[in-house]
Amino acid sequence: MFIGQGFDAHRFAPAGSGKELWLAGLRWDGDGIEGDSDGDVAAHALIDALLSAAHLGDIGTLFGVGRDSVGAGRHGADMLRTTVAHLAEHGFVPCSASVALVGNRPKIGPRRAEAEAVLSDAVGCRVSLTATTTDGMGFTGHGEGVAAIATALVERCHG
Amino acid sequence: MFIGQGFDAHRFAPAGSGKELWLAGLRWDGDGIEGDSDGDVAAHALIDALLSAAHLGDIGTLFGVGRDSVGAGRHGADMLRTTVAHLAEHGFVPCSASVALVGNRPKIGPRRAEAEAVLSDAVGCRVSLTATTTDGMGFTGHGEGVAAIATALVERCHG
Amino acid sequence: MFIGQGFDAHRFAPAGSGKELWLAGLRWDGDGIEGDSDGDVAAHALIDALLSAAHLGDIGTLFGVGRDSVGAGRHGADMLRTTVAHLAEHGFVPCSASVALVGNRPKIGPRRAEAEAVLSDAVGCRVSLTATTTDGMGFTGHGEGVAAIATALVERCHG
Repeated sequence: MFIGQGFDAHRFAPAGSGKELWLAGLRWDGDGIEGDSDGDVAAHALIDALLSAAHLGDIGTLFGVGRDSVGAGRHGADMLRTTVAHLAEHGFVPCSASVALVGNRPKIGPRRAEAEAVLSDAVGCRVSLTATTTDGMGFTGHGEGVAAIATALVERCHG
Repeated sequence: MFIGQGFDAHRFAPAGSGKELWLAGLRWDGDGIEGDSDGDVAAHALIDALLSAAHLGDIGTLFGVGRDSVGAGRHGADMLRTTVAHLAEHGFVPCSASVALVGNRPKIGPRRAEAEAVLSDAVGCRVSLTATTTDGMGFTGHGEGVAAIATALVERCHG
Repeated sequence: MFIGQGFDAHRFAPAGSGKELWLAGLRWDGDGIEGDSDGDVAAHALIDALLSAAHLGDIGTLFGVGRDSVGAGRHGADMLRTTVAHLAEHGFVPCSASVALVGNRPKIGPRRAEAEAVLSDAVGCRVSLTATTTDGMGFTGHGEGVAAIATALVERCHG
């Protein structure tokens, strides 16, 4: 059994930017987020945790960095599927994963089950999602952006 | 074996607020902390890690949010016991857990063993506690508040 | 199997301070970092994760705090070796570990394999390293310093 840790943070886009907010595999109304891909910090932190557990670098290694990267414009759930396929090619399978979202918005509770279903389907094991705020402190508390801390367990494929 | 990640942060209360500081299951002199429950970020991050590992939502799912929630006014160790009983009802038992506290104060070292004993007793497995600062940077470094990152392993109950 | 969580953050030293930047077991040109030891946040977060998993306190317990501590002036990889020897004396062996670095600089990608080799050699199991930024937000985004979140699995030694 191998363990991985991942982190990501993205800035909310200014009002009227035309950007969408994608988070934890879902689109959320009323906000936008910066990023070359869809800016889904939950998915990106999970990808880093999975790749790290399998000792396969991080999201930049697999998808590149910047607007010309292979991740540009792609959605988190799609990138998670690519990540899991990459793990399988190297003989690893995800066992369990969890993401802690940190931010003022969006409110996760009402759509947690939906988000967990999308992430779990993409990863192929149960993925859980928690959400909390920082009590008005720091960049998440000031509403500048949203962050995610993820962890994952993977094991060697058998047979 | 399932893994969970949790995070929490609370703001120190202004001097003279009459609020107490509860952290890692203990009361600490000389400070107060904001929160509808006792504001124990170590306990709350642990609760999120345990619930997430068992795929049972987060602290808001189990205890509600705000002053009228069932968690209002309750202490972290008590809420941890409720959490572990909830896990047991769903067939899960905690195996191991760890919390990293981030903040300038209080100084954890002299009371670490005491705090770990309270948390371990509440969770029913060994819970470890580390503490560090952010070198004067960010909201923890400026002394605005304290944060905690937790992780936990749970497994299915046998028999 | 026991799990541990660790965190650390250090401030970049002002230009001309004569301080070196050590991170993830390597020296990096063009920057310096504050700290009584070499200020290697990746190594320090890993040490906390390993000690926490083994229920042996944290880096302050083992190495002390401040300029007169036994950790003063020591490098992260050396401190990791001491940590792993300490775990062995108490009957624990590291199984897997992962560190997520958070900061604008240095760029980890080109030297990831080198850093992972140094950390893995020091810990005696595979240690993985990811790196990300906070999109210009917070103390890491403003370039004040660098942070690391680590997790580790340890087990009891057999025989």
